[in-house]
Amino acid sequence: MAKSRFEYVRDFEQRDVLIPETYIVVRIDGKKFHEFSNYYKFEKPNDMRALKLMNACAKNVLLQYRSEVILAYGESDEYSFILRSDTTLYNRRIDKISSLFVSLFTSQYVMLWSKFFPNDPLDVKHLPFFDSRCVSYPNLKCIKDYLSWRFVDTHINNLYNTVFWQLVQKCGLTTREAENKLSGTVSSEKQEILFSECGINYNNEPEMFKKGSLVTRKGEILHIDVIKKIDELFEGY
Amino acid sequence: MAKSRFEYVRDFEQRDVLIPETYIVVRIDGKKFHEFSNYYKFEKPNDMRALKLMNACAKNVLLQYRSEVILAYGESDEYSFILRSDTTLYNRRIDKISSLFVSLFTSQYVMLWSKFFPNDPLDVKHLPFFDSRCVSYPNLKCIKDYLSWRFVDTHINNLYNTVFWQLVQKCGLTTREAENKLSGTVSSEKQEILFSECGINYNNEPEMFKKGSLVTRKGEILHIDVIKKIDELFEGY
Amino acid sequence: MAKSRFEYVRDFEQRDVLIPETYIVVRIDGKKFHEFSNYYKFEKPNDMRALKLMNACAKNVLLQYRSEVILAYGESDEYSFILRSDTTLYNRRIDKISSLFVSLFTSQYVMLWSKFFPNDPLDVKHLPFFDSRCVSYPNLKCIKDYLSWRFVDTHINNLYNTVFWQLVQKCGLTTREAENKLSGTVSSEKQEILFSECGINYNNEPEMFKKGSLVTRKGEILHIDVIKKIDELFEGY
Amino acid sequence: MAKSRFEYVRDFEQRDVLIPETYIVVRIDGKKFHEFSNYYKFEKPNDMRALKLMNACAKNVLLQYRSEVILAYGESDEYSFILRSDTTLYNRRIDKISSLFVSLFTSQYVMLWSKFFPNDPLDVKHLPFFDSRCVSYPNLKCIKDYLSWRFVDTHINNLYNTVFWQLVQKCGLTTREAENKLSGTVSSEKQEILFSECGINYNNEPEMFKKGSLVTRKGEILHIDVIKKIDELFEGY
Repeated sequence: MAKSRFEYVRDFEQRDVLIPETYIVVRIDGKKFHEFSNYYKFEKPNDMRALKLMNACAKNVLLQYRSEVILAYGESDEYSFILRSDTTLYNRRIDKISSLFVSLFTSQYVMLWSKFFPNDPLDVKHLPFFDSRCVSYPNLKCIKDYLSWRFVDTHINNLYNTVFWQLVQKCGLTTREAENKLSGTVSSEKQEILFSECGINYNNEPEMFKKGSLVTRKGEILHIDVIKKIDELFEGY
Repeated sequence: MAKSRFEYVRDFEQRDVLIPETYIVVRIDGKKFHEFSNYYKFEKPNDMRALKLMNACAKNVLLQYRSEVILAYGESDEYSFILRSDTTLYNRRIDKISSLFVSLFTSQYVMLWSKFFPNDPLDVKHLPFFDSRCVSYPNLKCIKDYLSWRFVDTHINNLYNTVFWQLVQKCGLTTREAENKLSGTVSSEKQEILFSECGINYNNEPEMFKKGSLVTRKGEILHIDVIKKIDELFEGY
Repeated sequence: MAKSRFEYVRDFEQRDVLIPETYIVVRIDGKKFHEFSNYYKFEKPNDMRALKLMNACAKNVLLQYRSEVILAYGESDEYSFILRSDTTLYNRRIDKISSLFVSLFTSQYVMLWSKFFPNDPLDVKHLPFFDSRCVSYPNLKCIKDYLSWRFVDTHINNLYNTVFWQLVQKCGLTTREAENKLSGTVSSEKQEILFSECGINYNNEPEMFKKGSLVTRKGEILHIDVIKKIDELFEGY
Repeated sequence: MAKSRFEYVRDFEQRDVLIPETYIVVRIDGKKFHEFSNYYKFEKPNDMRALKLMNACAKNVLLQYRSEVILAYGESDEYSFILRSDTTLYNRRIDKISSLFVSLFTSQYVMLWSKFFPNDPLDVKHLPFFDSRCVSYPNLKCIKDYLSWRFVDTHINNLYNTVFWQLVQKCGLTTREAENKLSGTVSSEKQEILFSECGINYNNEPEMFKKGSLVTRKGEILHIDVIKKIDELFEGY
């Protein structure tokens, strides 16, 4: 079609691409989900419905990009999609990959909300949204370490949050007191506090809370020890 | 909190920022909306409901970022948000700005869908999603030319599509025949064809179709000659 | 010519460009010039020969790119070349501009060395080299401020270094003592120390030391108050 | 030291880095060396002195960065330095690596010129200079392929140029005629033309011309079949 004299403004666009033969992580992260989860009264520290909603969204996104994605892994309000190193999706353009994944994820989240929160309709003034980034990982070792990083983070965060909220909700500590009590403790001490003061054995907590959720290429959602299975998970890639 | 030995994977992240003192355009564009609009039976060439839905989303996004946005302009399945040159939103990080705008826009789109398409519930297999990009414009002249570019594009596309679909729908031409008839014609010839063959005066077409939609900082939605008003629109920026 | 099956490795190259309509600064900076200047026994704090050599190199580089450069400004072992905002030199590719300027500058430096240091032949084990970077400035105000920044820096550095080395060389202070004496002093106090303790009036120091060197498009080398002349210097750009 | 109100201009600088755990190629390429080689009357198609000068420069650059460089490879007026994937040189900043390598190389070139061209002093109006770029390669296979690409290119270029110049210099063809004669020929045909028409056996040409020059970490300069030795060359990296 006709081109106008304003067409030159396209020259200001920059097209950054991820270099070939690197694994691509697209990580999506809830924006102000602290506020969002308060507004919709999510249970602390984990809301089963909210986690299942995240998983359902991730599964649908993964299935739509099935041929490009190795697996997805999520916890809390974040999800990472790991793409094959040989993917040529959108010519590996950062802006395209990053925006389309987050947009599709968001679309799913709003669409599926009522299924998981049937009694809490979304309010147009308090809608969920997510940021997104793309990161390149050049070899199998570092992409495995990426996943292990998110897995360990899940463990660290969940253990802390579980003890913290039990101290507050069950033992009546203020949030400040709970914070002080946990400050400087290592993993085993936190588990001990949880057991001795709140009568809870961390091992009996739901697997989804302790291990996060992993979506396989077939769309299965697993709660497994990612580090133990790390080689298996990337077999063939 | 404790840091794991996997923490190093964060060093692979790159944080691109838009240089200071440049206007920022965030342009959102429907992904495969040709297919999407077919599935939901949008009217051709313009579906008033779909355009109003786009406008409502853009308005809500703009209002949420009101202090950073100068105006927004949209047509068809795309919308451009123009940010102040002195904005420090998300430290001008490309990934943050680009992803959060498109995610919030998508959230609005799915949320507001039923208001504009009350009889066509969204199907989880056919959800809307959008790509997004950030572009930097270093001075007033080129950011004005950017907006003018989108405005002229709206005109060119809409005139073509209007005549094309009238020839097909009213005069019974095949799409191929309509294409051939319009090939190589200039604006005035297209208007003449529209008038003589379909009995339609292009001037009487809805302003929203001919001029696109401009959302002001106050949230007003206007359908105006952007080029005539261009200096006024950027006054004070 | 024939292409080999290895040709694909070119796809790993990334071509970053500076966005249009922005002024470009190419700043060149001596690498380990502290060491280099010790080896060749540069006079402290300023070596007239070394500064004149820098100026000669900058002038020759500027003249080779005369149609693209507005001016160049240097002090000590650094030089900034300011390019027109409408330059299309090397399609505004960062790698090309940055590397070719620094390479030509280095070529000049080694070539002209013997003219300014006739008795100190360069030693292949101690050759000069420079780093280089490109920066984009979107408007006249900030490119003027860039130049003013370098000018003020010249003043601050030169005043400090002049007093410091006089205290060491004339008054016999150790470098540590000189440092302590100057710590926390403002400009006027430094000038006072220089006058009262070393008998030197800073105003009488050579203009090149106090003001740096500015190379005009005609190749003139000036030592002027850049801030006072700032509007004049960019007139017409 | 004191900071001026102009300091903010530093915020316009962008610091691009090469992602970790990728091999880095720094490729240096002569700027307008066709012209340069004509001016200094280089022998065609290969000037032994010029190639040896390039090698000497590359060797010295490599030795200065010995702990970071795996090897260097050059032909004609270009040289590639291949850096270890775990190098943290200049924090992997593109601008630093690219500019310092090309600047040091240029410094060497001008410095060593008279050793290889004792009767042809450099003219300040015709100085050599080079461009430079950094490229990231994520795995051993593709960095090997990079080197193989340059090696094959050396072969293709040298065979063509050898036959071409023999046809012109020995057989009296015009450059146009030589071009036409070679157009569309494959390798074996070119060798046949060279043998039958110019009486030259390509196999007897100097190894440096046919195979380019490879500089090892120890500073040895080899002319070997890079592809045959490719695994050996990268052993341990």
